[in-house]
Amino acid sequence: MRNVTVEEAAALLRGQDQILILTHRSPDGDTLGSGFALLRALLSCGKRARLLCSDPIPAKYEYLRRGISDADFAPAFVVAVDIADEKLLGAPLEAQYAGRIDLCVDHHLSNTGYAKALLLRECAATCELIEPLVRALGCRVTPAIADCIYTGLSTDTGCFRYSNVTPETFELAAEMLRAGADFDNINRVMFETKTKTYLKLEALVLASLELHFGGRCAAVTITQEMFRESGSNETECDGIASLPRKIEGVEVGLTLRERADGSFKVSVRTYAPYDASAVCAALGGGGHARAAGCEIDKNDLAAGKARLLSAVQRELEAR
Amino acid sequence: MRNVTVEEAAALLRGQDQILILTHRSPDGDTLGSGFALLRALLSCGKRARLLCSDPIPAKYEYLRRGISDADFAPAFVVAVDIADEKLLGAPLEAQYAGRIDLCVDHHLSNTGYAKALLLRECAATCELIEPLVRALGCRVTPAIADCIYTGLSTDTGCFRYSNVTPETFELAAEMLRAGADFDNINRVMFETKTKTYLKLEALVLASLELHFGGRCAAVTITQEMFRESGSNETECDGIASLPRKIEGVEVGLTLRERADGSFKVSVRTYAPYDASAVCAALGGGGHARAAGCEIDKNDLAAGKARLLSAVQRELEAR
Repeated sequence: MRNVTVEEAAALLRGQDQILILTHRSPDGDTLGSGFALLRALLSCGKRARLLCSDPIPAKYEYLRRGISDADFAPAFVVAVDIADEKLLGAPLEAQYAGRIDLCVDHHLSNTGYAKALLLRECAATCELIEPLVRALGCRVTPAIADCIYTGLSTDTGCFRYSNVTPETFELAAEMLRAGADFDNINRVMFETKTKTYLKLEALVLASLELHFGGRCAAVTITQEMFRESGSNETECDGIASLPRKIEGVEVGLTLRERADGSFKVSVRTYAPYDASAVCAALGGGGHARAAGCEIDKNDLAAGKARLLSAVQRELEAR
Repeated sequence: MRNVTVEEAAALLRGQDQILILTHRSPDGDTLGSGFALLRALLSCGKRARLLCSDPIPAKYEYLRRGISDADFAPAFVVAVDIADEKLLGAPLEAQYAGRIDLCVDHHLSNTGYAKALLLRECAATCELIEPLVRALGCRVTPAIADCIYTGLSTDTGCFRYSNVTPETFELAAEMLRAGADFDNINRVMFETKTKTYLKLEALVLASLELHFGGRCAAVTITQEMFRESGSNETECDGIASLPRKIEGVEVGLTLRERADGSFKVSVRTYAPYDASAVCAALGGGGHARAAGCEIDKNDLAAGKARLLSAVQRELEAR
């Protein structure tokens, strides 16, 4: 693995054709915004390119790929966007492409260095690296690309609310508005709309609220049963991970979401100085200082949850 | 009344001393952020200045005035910030200062032109006009002033989520971060913290939800009884005004909040193209295209609400 600059990454891409872009499983606005922005830029340069994801793309992100038709070719160059670890490709893509990633563009300092070339900088969203890459490719930031970049910026920052926001994040957002990003509709879909099924799910989830360590840690659980009862599903869960931390006095918020296979995806959100990635590292996960994730096996729920709470306690006591 | 530029407003202030700054009643982050930013700038220029509000300043805004001591003097020059109409001064300040406002800095196009000089531009927050005014006064934007400006910007845009955000809003936010605004703590207090009393109030308010016109309009009511039952109060209501519009399919959201005197403050939030200020104008109120307000008298609740819903219906049918 070697680290590359934006210009070196652009040079690599310019020399290639038949480019495959991979996003992470359970795709979010940043991996999809990054992927489709890069895809649109490559297509506008006359390259053959396409994007793959192990999971279906949620309907609310449909606008990111509007107007793009699927290309069919044998990939000659593989790019991963916003993927810290090959495991996060998801089973089908991991089986096919692990060890074969030519370039990775990512903003997670925990990146495992699996790609041949790595464009990495810690910033609020991978999209903050994709935008200069698009320009280094000589491409215009069209309104459609601006939509993609704005989507990554806004979704990875809770619409500019989290501590990962920097002056550069705001400046790039300003540029994307000037480039024609339809921010009003994107915000409406991403942040302002609660479906009736989501409201039902939220009520069920709040009823599962547990407080630990004198109210400094709050945990909620989302089960498959709750999805059935509310009519909601995984794609509506983005906002719930930030709920527990919102309760007054809570420093560490935990969300345990049951997958269809019975395993649990854990999201950890903290306030400074508590380190979410340190908590998740204790369970083999990782991420950022304020937002990280890990997994609990379906046969290990009770013990896994106990390990998680121990890790939270250690973190609360260490600072 | 004459319209003035930022430079003319700064020249007016430079020629004065014993300056009184007035904010609107039920003070929000923009009127207080604007007022305290200007106050801090004037004090740093060696002027005597102070700020008044008809209502107590909510505890969560306490940081805006940290370190400022009260000055006592007979005002020689009166400035109103973020006040579209003298009525919004609130009874005590209106009685004393109506007809005596020398300068008004405001971003409401509905401004009634009550001041001798008016610095008005339609932008997301009055703070967007205060920041250049501070610089035109020759003052440095200190971290404390940056906190004030950032507070106005972020609270009037729902933390950069509403359609009133422009590239300039983002650019000013970037500058305020560079000037040392403690945005992480401000966001945490303004947008991320839900008290247990607020969560109780929200549940009571959601139970009052009514849908009208095929689900295109949602209305909630906040009563004094709900404050008593939840232990919450007016100062925790800022977020609730945006709740009804968040429900899928809703174009116009209404929040009716009962005051201690039994009158109702109505907040109207719309999505484009529906005009919130047109709805409120029908009841003698006003504001912006997407967010506006009006009043319903305590002896007129049923009829007032009927007029409000008629105005909403006309607006929904007119577009």
